[in-house]
Amino acid sequence: MREERDNNKDTSIIEGRNAVLEAFRAGKTIDRLLIQDGCQDGPIQTIKREARKADTIIDFVPKERLDHMSETGRHQGVIACAASYDYAEVSDILAAAREKGEAPFLILLDGVEDPHNLGAIIRTANLAGAHGVIIPKRRAVGLTAAVARTSAGALNYTPVARVTNLGNTIDELKKEGIWFACADMSAEPMYRANLTGPIGLVIGAEGSGVSRLVQEKCDFTVSIPMKGNIDSLNASVAAGVLAFEIVRQREYL
Amino acid sequence: MREERDNNKDTSIIEGRNAVLEAFRAGKTIDRLLIQDGCQDGPIQTIKREARKADTIIDFVPKERLDHMSETGRHQGVIACAASYDYAEVSDILAAAREKGEAPFLILLDGVEDPHNLGAIIRTANLAGAHGVIIPKRRAVGLTAAVARTSAGALNYTPVARVTNLGNTIDELKKEGIWFACADMSAEPMYRANLTGPIGLVIGAEGSGVSRLVQEKCDFTVSIPMKGNIDSLNASVAAGVLAFEIVRQREYL
Repeated sequence: MREERDNNKDTSIIEGRNAVLEAFRAGKTIDRLLIQDGCQDGPIQTIKREARKADTIIDFVPKERLDHMSETGRHQGVIACAASYDYAEVSDILAAAREKGEAPFLILLDGVEDPHNLGAIIRTANLAGAHGVIIPKRRAVGLTAAVARTSAGALNYTPVARVTNLGNTIDELKKEGIWFACADMSAEPMYRANLTGPIGLVIGAEGSGVSRLVQEKCDFTVSIPMKGNIDSLNASVAAGVLAFEIVRQREYL
Repeated sequence: MREERDNNKDTSIIEGRNAVLEAFRAGKTIDRLLIQDGCQDGPIQTIKREARKADTIIDFVPKERLDHMSETGRHQGVIACAASYDYAEVSDILAAAREKGEAPFLILLDGVEDPHNLGAIIRTANLAGAHGVIIPKRRAVGLTAAVARTSAGALNYTPVARVTNLGNTIDELKKEGIWFACADMSAEPMYRANLTGPIGLVIGAEGSGVSRLVQEKCDFTVSIPMKGNIDSLNASVAAGVLAFEIVRQREYL
């Protein structure tokens, strides 16, 4: 999230129709809703209805104003000014699993720098029933407007924790009984690994993969069986395929 | 040639009457032809005839749109958006499967408009061992430079065919013994469907999903079991999860 340059210095912005609508539906506090002059279509009407329900101030502004505020360049005629997305604590994620009476299912990202990938992975985490996402402070993108938008609202529900050292966090979580599976395309196919029980799925950066230090902390490695001519799946696609293999093993075996 | 700023960020454009006409006559694949509202003169009629022969979509747009896209400032009322890559024929895709001695595995996209999603899906198709991707001419992004880049090279290996009517194509392919599975999140979980044998996996646009007409042509529907709070996975993530369930059933059962 970034700061709006205009008036409210500390307001973070949510842009794009899906992201804004989801923010309202998730009950997020929106200080102000900016809609492009002349935008009248169905999705905008839906957003306006949600905004009125929430008693949010609606301003109609010229497109140039939205263009100027937009970080992604794809505001789709609507920007909501909201409180910043807060990072959760790792303990919050574990508490969420405990509350649901489920074995913890975490997704850890080692160096994913593309905001679209991070957003898509948070979205996947939400739908695969993961209890949270853990990212490192270094070498990673934060919770920017682009991430919020690509997460399609999942950022309102799925906690994201940011830690100083991913390896140390893994060590601590192992004490809680969580096993760590590292995505590594030279490993055995994921179908042959046991992915039931408390699990942390570690996904690496595109290209470089999971760093050696983090990989060494993991209990085992899993791969997606690859055919074809090129090197690797998009990081968010790989995370999705692995996450739903965990879902399959947990619930459909 | 330069990039169009509007939707297909990296579509290369050809502007001016002579250049556009030459492009058609040289057999270049043009994704879309933009003609200025009200332009009716002889040369424009000739270009329109060529465009119809090539089955190219023609859009009539305000002069301002062309001015905005134009690099030379001399578009003369006409701009063609050219494909960066050549399309294959559906028969090429079937031939590829036959050559490998494999049951055909096709991925059909009904209305995926985001170039990053199309690129990521072509990448997934390559790595999941699909023999090709089929997209419709309408309501879809073409093979632009952005698609090529996101495909991470897969576009050089995995054929992409573009068809006028996805429903008709499905009908024809059924005669070849291919079964069609439609992604639909209200359907039964994919683990319970039989996805072995010759298969076409049909993925819909984000939000709207597979259109009713195409869905009715399919033999059965499959879903990814969803938990969580939001509506849907990113289209390329959904395609990846479903494609690798096909891989699992074909090779790991």
